[in-house]
Amino acid sequence: MSDLDALRTPCPLLDVDVLDANLRRAADLAARLGVVLRPHAKTHKCVQVARRQLAAGAVGLTVATTAEAEAFAAGGATDLFVAYPLWVDADRGRRLRALAERTALRVGVDSAEGAAALARHAGGAAEVLVEVDSGHHRTGVRPEEAGAVATAAARAGLRVRGVFTFPGHAYGPGLASPVAGQEAAALAAAAAAVRAAGHEVDVVSGGSTPTLGSTQGGPATELRPGVYALNDAQQLELGTCGAGDLALTVLAMVVSRRPGTVVLDAGSKVLGADRPAWTTGWGRLPAVPGARVTALSEHHATVALPEGAAVPALGARLRVAPNHVCTAVNLADELVAVRGDAVVDRWRVDARGANT
Amino acid sequence: MSDLDALRTPCPLLDVDVLDANLRRAADLAARLGVVLRPHAKTHKCVQVARRQLAAGAVGLTVATTAEAEAFAAGGATDLFVAYPLWVDADRGRRLRALAERTALRVGVDSAEGAAALARHAGGAAEVLVEVDSGHHRTGVRPEEAGAVATAAARAGLRVRGVFTFPGHAYGPGLASPVAGQEAAALAAAAAAVRAAGHEVDVVSGGSTPTLGSTQGGPATELRPGVYALNDAQQLELGTCGAGDLALTVLAMVVSRRPGTVVLDAGSKVLGADRPAWTTGWGRLPAVPGARVTALSEHHATVALPEGAAVPALGARLRVAPNHVCTAVNLADELVAVRGDAVVDRWRVDARGANT
Repeated sequence: MSDLDALRTPCPLLDVDVLDANLRRAADLAARLGVVLRPHAKTHKCVQVARRQLAAGAVGLTVATTAEAEAFAAGGATDLFVAYPLWVDADRGRRLRALAERTALRVGVDSAEGAAALARHAGGAAEVLVEVDSGHHRTGVRPEEAGAVATAAARAGLRVRGVFTFPGHAYGPGLASPVAGQEAAALAAAAAAVRAAGHEVDVVSGGSTPTLGSTQGGPATELRPGVYALNDAQQLELGTCGAGDLALTVLAMVVSRRPGTVVLDAGSKVLGADRPAWTTGWGRLPAVPGARVTALSEHHATVALPEGAAVPALGARLRVAPNHVCTAVNLADELVAVRGDAVVDRWRVDARGANT
Repeated sequence: MSDLDALRTPCPLLDVDVLDANLRRAADLAARLGVVLRPHAKTHKCVQVARRQLAAGAVGLTVATTAEAEAFAAGGATDLFVAYPLWVDADRGRRLRALAERTALRVGVDSAEGAAALARHAGGAAEVLVEVDSGHHRTGVRPEEAGAVATAAARAGLRVRGVFTFPGHAYGPGLASPVAGQEAAALAAAAAAVRAAGHEVDVVSGGSTPTLGSTQGGPATELRPGVYALNDAQQLELGTCGAGDLALTVLAMVVSRRPGTVVLDAGSKVLGADRPAWTTGWGRLPAVPGARVTALSEHHATVALPEGAAVPALGARLRVAPNHVCTAVNLADELVAVRGDAVVDRWRVDARGANT
């Protein structure tokens, strides 16, 4: 009987040894590349994980929202980048000013109007990086427009530190290397445009977990991967990690079975519903490489077992890695910290639901 | 300036007038069909909504998990059905017995072993309904096997009340009517099998929101729709509801814009990531019928506007209906209750994260 048998299922587990190995590997890579690491904390939303990232050499944290910044500042973080083109009104301006009293704060901008609103409501509380679209086509300006946004921000009284991008279009088989090339080209062009407009550029920020291994001595001074700390079924299927690098899994129980199939009590309300077309299902079972989660409801994962595999008994406990760990963690109030099958702690998901 | 302008975005809104109209319509339908309504509370997870359902004539609530049952019992519910084939260990047995002290409790079983475990650990705390697979192929036995499971449950000392199914395979265009037929046939066959095995059947329970309008005077004595209370973009696209029936929307803000496109600050961490292949995107904008959410990240919804539509300004606030309201509500700690643009209350999502 292991500690895990006493947990109520479904239950998210975070293996601390795997986490630490993942953090070390990324820190080594950053050192080799001569860049700093500013991990995206939206992945884990957990002050305990952030502390380990900073202890492993990260220069600060990246967050997606003002509320995440507040949660990590409350947990002791002192250097935060909100990698998002915030639209700042009076309320958000007050919040950013309060944050700036205890942290070094940067935020993203991708329009002159956005920069003006930031300056109007938050004054110089935050330095800015201009967001650049490197091909993901979500937010951000074209590289050649970055100089104009930087100039608008500077004229509004903001301190421009550089440019950033997120190469989110690397999520797909075989895309990491070409997208890393696009990212490097876009960042180089944007940095040049900002310099040509008369501004200093000392931060060129990019990176994602899929492109980490394809990043070479490009223009980036800073990388902001998030998922690398925990990994997930998407990364496993992209080849970015191995099954032994999956730090976060959900402990689930067999509640129904038939030949070749078990149904687990872990559904979209604990694993998340993310299911890109290129994935093979809704998650993976690290211990049964050939198994596939062929259907997911809110409280059911239907698992097709590989040919000839024994069908686990009713009540058996299995670990499932979610497709997208960032949305899975955001469903949990706490993560059970384990080393192998031993429970060692419970870590609060401090920024769960911190969307605003 | 409306009340909504003072809310931090993204923010889930629940329109109480739309909710009440949705509840009334379903209550009228159930009365017309001569069946009782036992709405699935996993959709809203909210005691305030459950009270309105009970006030509108529901006989009790359906829940998916023991923890949901605990949350609604704490909120005053006295008649609960856990529509799930629970695997009961000592811990869950204790919880079910505690629940049964203050509620009339039913749970699902779909195996002789499951019935034996329930009897062993929870005694006669809960009555049982045998789960039947009506074509969704998730959990449940074939209709002709229902008699054997009922007999196993009775021999274990449990009181068998009848059979239930969930016609989840009705989620797709044009499927409601044929699936409602399959559901009726499966329930009738299962009820007959249980009776033939010598047991009384006084509960025949089915239903789902997509099949509600296709349900006729079949074998069902009880319907368990969930989504109908709030509705969502999936139901809109299935034709099960109109835009005016969407009780739950997420108030979001424009943070980036380009010709024909806006990016909102509502992503998968507030809307949920559900995206069945037959849907047109990741949600719908009730006020802009031609708009489509063409991409969704954790904190970004990319919205393609219809040809010729004005592009909303940066900072503009728009409402988005999520694809699947059950997973969207589960991401929120509270829902802002509104009547139109007026904020009238804040309702706690009592059973958020109640997965165990």
